[in-house]
Amino acid sequence: MKSLTVKIPHIDSSSYDIKIKAGLLRDLPQIIEAQLGACRKMIVTDSNVKKSGHTDSLSSCGEIFVIDPPGECNKYMHTIVDILEQMEQTAMGRDSAIIAVGGGTVGDMAGFAASIFKRGVPVVHVPTTTVSQADSSIGGKTGVDSSFSKNAYGAFWHPAAVFIDVETLKTLDQRQFNAGLVESIKHALIADQTYFEYLEDNIDAILDKDNSALEEIALFNSKIKASIVSIDPKEKNQRRILNYGHTIGHAIESASNFELLHGEAVAIGIIGASIIEIELGIGNIQRLERVKKLLSKLSLPLKIPANITKEQIYELLSRDKKSIGGWPKFALIEDIARVHIDADNQWAHRVDPAVVDVAINELMQ
Amino acid sequence: MKSLTVKIPHIDSSSYDIKIKAGLLRDLPQIIEAQLGACRKMIVTDSNVKKSGHTDSLSSCGEIFVIDPPGECNKYMHTIVDILEQMEQTAMGRDSAIIAVGGGTVGDMAGFAASIFKRGVPVVHVPTTTVSQADSSIGGKTGVDSSFSKNAYGAFWHPAAVFIDVETLKTLDQRQFNAGLVESIKHALIADQTYFEYLEDNIDAILDKDNSALEEIALFNSKIKASIVSIDPKEKNQRRILNYGHTIGHAIESASNFELLHGEAVAIGIIGASIIEIELGIGNIQRLERVKKLLSKLSLPLKIPANITKEQIYELLSRDKKSIGGWPKFALIEDIARVHIDADNQWAHRVDPAVVDVAINELMQ
Repeated sequence: MKSLTVKIPHIDSSSYDIKIKAGLLRDLPQIIEAQLGACRKMIVTDSNVKKSGHTDSLSSCGEIFVIDPPGECNKYMHTIVDILEQMEQTAMGRDSAIIAVGGGTVGDMAGFAASIFKRGVPVVHVPTTTVSQADSSIGGKTGVDSSFSKNAYGAFWHPAAVFIDVETLKTLDQRQFNAGLVESIKHALIADQTYFEYLEDNIDAILDKDNSALEEIALFNSKIKASIVSIDPKEKNQRRILNYGHTIGHAIESASNFELLHGEAVAIGIIGASIIEIELGIGNIQRLERVKKLLSKLSLPLKIPANITKEQIYELLSRDKKSIGGWPKFALIEDIARVHIDADNQWAHRVDPAVVDVAINELMQ
Repeated sequence: MKSLTVKIPHIDSSSYDIKIKAGLLRDLPQIIEAQLGACRKMIVTDSNVKKSGHTDSLSSCGEIFVIDPPGECNKYMHTIVDILEQMEQTAMGRDSAIIAVGGGTVGDMAGFAASIFKRGVPVVHVPTTTVSQADSSIGGKTGVDSSFSKNAYGAFWHPAAVFIDVETLKTLDQRQFNAGLVESIKHALIADQTYFEYLEDNIDAILDKDNSALEEIALFNSKIKASIVSIDPKEKNQRRILNYGHTIGHAIESASNFELLHGEAVAIGIIGASIIEIELGIGNIQRLERVKKLLSKLSLPLKIPANITKEQIYELLSRDKKSIGGWPKFALIEDIARVHIDADNQWAHRVDPAVVDVAINELMQ
């Protein structure tokens, strides 16, 4: 047999900037032009965001593609193809770029489209929701759903830049706004004592959408998310801590038929994780009470809704994307900003079903 | 303005192996199992290749997806979605893999599907045509066509391994087989004197599909393609030399409405490039005659078909994917295995339209 080896060269480390400022959108055309040069640009947004006026200042930048209706119902490949074909139709080339203006689903789709147009063009994220500003715009995960599962198709595609204008949060309704803050609480719990105390001390200013408080938490969130994805960009291990509260949370979200918002379900999931930690002897009741108090201030649910059964939860846990042998792994902490890491340096853990059952029972009362 | 920088870590260099052997297909299930482990596998092929029996030995490996009808008519996103949905339907996960068995279009589509399934799973290429064995299975370019242009959507996705069984070439019809050899002649011209002489000396054995001659040229081709894509994986500069003969070739292929096979059109394009080189004072008539003699042995056309007009050629040249300001760049050589590189170290060049016109005129006579 003849044989030879093809070498794939290493790729140098690189970086991108996150800029945070109330009112940043107004200056964005100049800033983006300076950064990307005079390339053709496709703005990808959804009809809610467009209605809110967040794309108005960018209209001179290039073409626009509006996802309508917004949300998961259009998070499929057909929308990606529609974006790409519009770019082809207007004869955009390899030197074009996509500007994503919106929440998580807009960013996921715009980033994915950018990753496969002409084998990859830059994407700039302009997140406009609490979740996307705290979380999804940073880290390079992109994708769409299949008929069978969430985020089944996609790519890792890092943005060229992220621009966070906290004023866009003022057009969100209060329920969406509050639910999105759960990712901020999660960040504080897994990574930063000072941040958790900041949230406790400033929750009223945050709920009042005070610009400087919103800028402050955007910076805390970006730093935490950035540091974790820099260590483990492809979620081999450490990045799994970002799933804190999400294992039980995802199951509750699905069981509610998405009547609960993602953040609302994760709030219950975080309490579930705290109970598991207490059962395992690595948590404590005082921390759980602090978490509950903060979540209560945001008017978030602390229990599983009465119309969801235990059987539904277990069925969904067994089908979790990260399940092995029908049982998921759990990201856990030992204290605020102290991740539970086992002897094999693993950041996600198998937990005895009996222990999980204690948590589920307590969440159902 | 608050600002922070996200670091994207470097990616280590890596590699993959190309194995070449007549009859290799028979042992492939064991070899692939040893390499990829017991993961779920999706074999992607087309109806011609399946009919030829080339997937028979692999049927125990996993599921199969058959592209039907074969060729460019199905090289669109809808086929990618069909492959992916079949993988989802059979509950394949992040630890699955795709085995591409077929020619260039099968490899392009299977590789693209692998690049976006669960944000990327391995692809193994088993090329079964002269073109794909010489060229497209190596180098990581994947993609599909848009309604407007070829390979508009795709990704760079390197294979986990390439397995070349030259016996699969015996089921090709002679016209396809011969046209595919043009990429071999191109490789020899741009990179290897010894290889060019080998082709001249062994063309009869090659046309007789002698196993050891076919293994030999597969090895020459793989080495040349591998060395070029290793230097410049994303086609920033050096990789452009692989377009030798393709600029005029692509225009002729399109103008013929794809009645000429890719290799047939590129054969004429290579002669065109040789004439341009003579006009620029970097070529010579003796080399052109050697090239023509070799192409004639393969019964390939040496002139532009009479039903194609000069206007069509110029219109298509101006719309070339790599055109700048409506005029393409040309990859050229100064001698066999000596690439024409300009003072700025560029491997593709602007050529005066008057010079190109001499070549087109000569090809039209």
